[in-house]
Amino acid sequence: MHTDPRTPEPRSDLGPDVAAQPHGNPHEAEDERPYGVEPDFVEEIAGLLRARERDAVLARLDGLHAADIADLIEQAEPAERADLIDLLPAELDGEVLSYLNPDLRESLIGRFEPQELADAVADLDTDDAVELIEDLDAETRAQILAKLPDAERALVQENLTYDEDSAGRMMQRELVAVPEFWTVGKTIDFVRAATDTLPEDFYDIFIVDPMHRVVGAVPLSRLLRQRRAVRIADLVTGEVDVIPATMEREEVANLFRQYALVSAPVVDAAGRLIGVITVDDVVRIIDEEAEDDLRKLSGSGDTGVFSGIGDIARSRVGWLTVNLATAFLASGVISLFEGTIEQIVALAVLMPIVASMGGNAGTQTLTVVVRALATHDLSSSNALRVVGKELLVGLINGGIFAVMVGLIALVWYGPLIGVVIGLAMIINLVVAGLSGALIPLGLEKLGVDPAVSSAVFLTTVTDVVGFLAFLGLASVFLL
Amino acid sequence: MHTDPRTPEPRSDLGPDVAAQPHGNPHEAEDERPYGVEPDFVEEIAGLLRARERDAVLARLDGLHAADIADLIEQAEPAERADLIDLLPAELDGEVLSYLNPDLRESLIGRFEPQELADAVADLDTDDAVELIEDLDAETRAQILAKLPDAERALVQENLTYDEDSAGRMMQRELVAVPEFWTVGKTIDFVRAATDTLPEDFYDIFIVDPMHRVVGAVPLSRLLRQRRAVRIADLVTGEVDVIPATMEREEVANLFRQYALVSAPVVDAAGRLIGVITVDDVVRIIDEEAEDDLRKLSGSGDTGVFSGIGDIARSRVGWLTVNLATAFLASGVISLFEGTIEQIVALAVLMPIVASMGGNAGTQTLTVVVRALATHDLSSSNALRVVGKELLVGLINGGIFAVMVGLIALVWYGPLIGVVIGLAMIINLVVAGLSGALIPLGLEKLGVDPAVSSAVFLTTVTDVVGFLAFLGLASVFLL
Repeated sequence: MHTDPRTPEPRSDLGPDVAAQPHGNPHEAEDERPYGVEPDFVEEIAGLLRARERDAVLARLDGLHAADIADLIEQAEPAERADLIDLLPAELDGEVLSYLNPDLRESLIGRFEPQELADAVADLDTDDAVELIEDLDAETRAQILAKLPDAERALVQENLTYDEDSAGRMMQRELVAVPEFWTVGKTIDFVRAATDTLPEDFYDIFIVDPMHRVVGAVPLSRLLRQRRAVRIADLVTGEVDVIPATMEREEVANLFRQYALVSAPVVDAAGRLIGVITVDDVVRIIDEEAEDDLRKLSGSGDTGVFSGIGDIARSRVGWLTVNLATAFLASGVISLFEGTIEQIVALAVLMPIVASMGGNAGTQTLTVVVRALATHDLSSSNALRVVGKELLVGLINGGIFAVMVGLIALVWYGPLIGVVIGLAMIINLVVAGLSGALIPLGLEKLGVDPAVSSAVFLTTVTDVVGFLAFLGLASVFLL
Repeated sequence: MHTDPRTPEPRSDLGPDVAAQPHGNPHEAEDERPYGVEPDFVEEIAGLLRARERDAVLARLDGLHAADIADLIEQAEPAERADLIDLLPAELDGEVLSYLNPDLRESLIGRFEPQELADAVADLDTDDAVELIEDLDAETRAQILAKLPDAERALVQENLTYDEDSAGRMMQRELVAVPEFWTVGKTIDFVRAATDTLPEDFYDIFIVDPMHRVVGAVPLSRLLRQRRAVRIADLVTGEVDVIPATMEREEVANLFRQYALVSAPVVDAAGRLIGVITVDDVVRIIDEEAEDDLRKLSGSGDTGVFSGIGDIARSRVGWLTVNLATAFLASGVISLFEGTIEQIVALAVLMPIVASMGGNAGTQTLTVVVRALATHDLSSSNALRVVGKELLVGLINGGIFAVMVGLIALVWYGPLIGVVIGLAMIINLVVAGLSGALIPLGLEKLGVDPAVSSAVFLTTVTDVVGFLAFLGLASVFLL
């Protein structure tokens, strides 16, 4: 069977290692990054750019994946980025731009001519084209749209009418749909003939009725296995997961995750097939949503490592201001006990411990609950059980740390203060567990995103209860 | 073209709405969950289970997606779960088990007979089979393996020899590989004939040389478009992203993300094709990794809403203990200034503000940096720039909040204390920005996962510096 006289070099993204050292294990090295661009390569390109060696840069970029060129731009210094764009506008095509970090893309896009951008957009499937122009200012956007072919402009504009976070905005319009009475053979012939109007890659063939409503989906691997005479509608197994164009992208991600989908049809309000969403876009969304939750929980705003200093500072002020209000609320509670603290200064030394342990225990619960809400592992069916669990966990860990903290405080400041801080610890850890579960559940019930506001409510509760329990008990038992 | 006399009902996962109200917009309702199981349905099944209505339960589950049956089990009460498994062991097949939350699966798997589990495992592709049995105790695992067909057992056992978090553990062995001299027609004929040994779904055909090393990959949509006489090797464009079996799964996820892959070949140390990883598994990994980062940053351990109370409590004690040590360190700093606090009790009231603002500002930076490290947006090429940015952001926000806090403290306790707290605020927010960037970068450099340990180092720094700056300045300027 293997009679081919040529012995071609295995082509691989891992470079020559795999071919040259077939019996070694070149991938065990800890530091090796098996993809993306190396710092050395970034340095090398930077040097060539400074020397204005346009052809040398071109030669080095030749054959590089668009994602890697985007990586190179991300890793480069701001001045080098500008040089790269000015030297090689044609190399930085639509695909490179669509792989680029959105913050960075926004800041660089002004360096391109509208015609260059229009060429870039025209190369892309609708979903990537839309992503590229949706963040532009109205004037630039209009300039680019005006330069697009009519058919493509209409599709892009239609996508833009859907909400920013909806399936309609992220769908691609290029797809393969065939009527249900077609055979496998006719479908294959159609795909062979219609090369120009099809998406570059696709994974399912959609079957539509005369009203263009989705009747079924056939994965290509199933189509390929059948004889040409088989009716394509007979290959449909199970129901199709159709996505309404108005569905939020977070739900789209959940749908793909839930049913392990690779592509899914998007339908309009009348149930007609208008687009397709593929898993590579969903991977991006899943990443962004996970990052969003993380950022919301930590209040780090919507800026990242590629944002400008002013933007970063501004995006974080809101959260810090809210925290400041919380901190002053806690200070207000402490000030109620100024007299007590004046008499027993040890209280001032120990009180941050109670608040901090409560905050940490509450955040542990909060993280688990917010995440479970986002992935729909937590619903009204099992909410009560989860709250009960967290209450008990708070009690158990409250007890453990009451003993630990109590003993240390006892050695440091005497037995009574040990008992007081132990009791305060149990109270605050139980409250922390309860609030960590109830606050996000309550916010979700009220239709507020639990990730964005839970943390600040939680620390308010654990600070206030922590100081109140400790200083309050102290003023009762120690004075 | 659309002459088919039948007008079939569109089948859709969204139920009859799409078909019955073709001109309405049935998907705008906020509460509607477009997939998964509704609490009402869970209730209904629970009722039927209590009444031991086996056939009625069977009828309701008929046609339900395996993922939805898994969902139902997750939402049900523990007693109902047991009933469901006891009544319907055959319905809860391998696919359902592989969709089940791992924590829950582990706690339920004891209810199945080894033969039931072996049947479930035999149904699955290697990757899912391995996932199912890897967490079992050695004895149960051996029992199940003994009941598997020889060929499957060998493959499963081979996967198990790779590290738990490696590509080799997660790859599926069923794949389509053809020699490079084959034509499109021969490849299609091969796929049609070999139905039994192929994976259920596949997305790429891999081309191998006589040594079984990967020479190229052809997406099915590209294969389908070509005439039968075309040589398959001529359809290869660009390099293949091959994955060494020893690659960590986090890197696998990054590779899929970086190049928007749908499937990728896994090779052994000699570069020979041994398996394939598909994007549905990667979606799961991306979710788990994002969740991991979130859990590590918040110290919420490796337990979730489906874990037992004892496990949850235990998994969180470690982090709380570390935090306790940190809190005592901060208390130690405060105790150095007991004399100062005794004289000016306002210091005890205000000092948590400085520490808390520093902690929050630092966490903002930390989150962004940890995430950027995980996604490789941050590398040694741009690390210095990011640290510089964060320093400046700390200075800007430190200045803003110094003025705000200073003014409030001035009104509350007089001008001098306002100046002192303002200065302490600037110092702590600059330190917070610097530490929030430098701590994870340093840990990464040392080969330690920055997500797991950064937060505790950070709060130690911001607490200690916060109390030290505020109380130290106070004892210099106010006494």
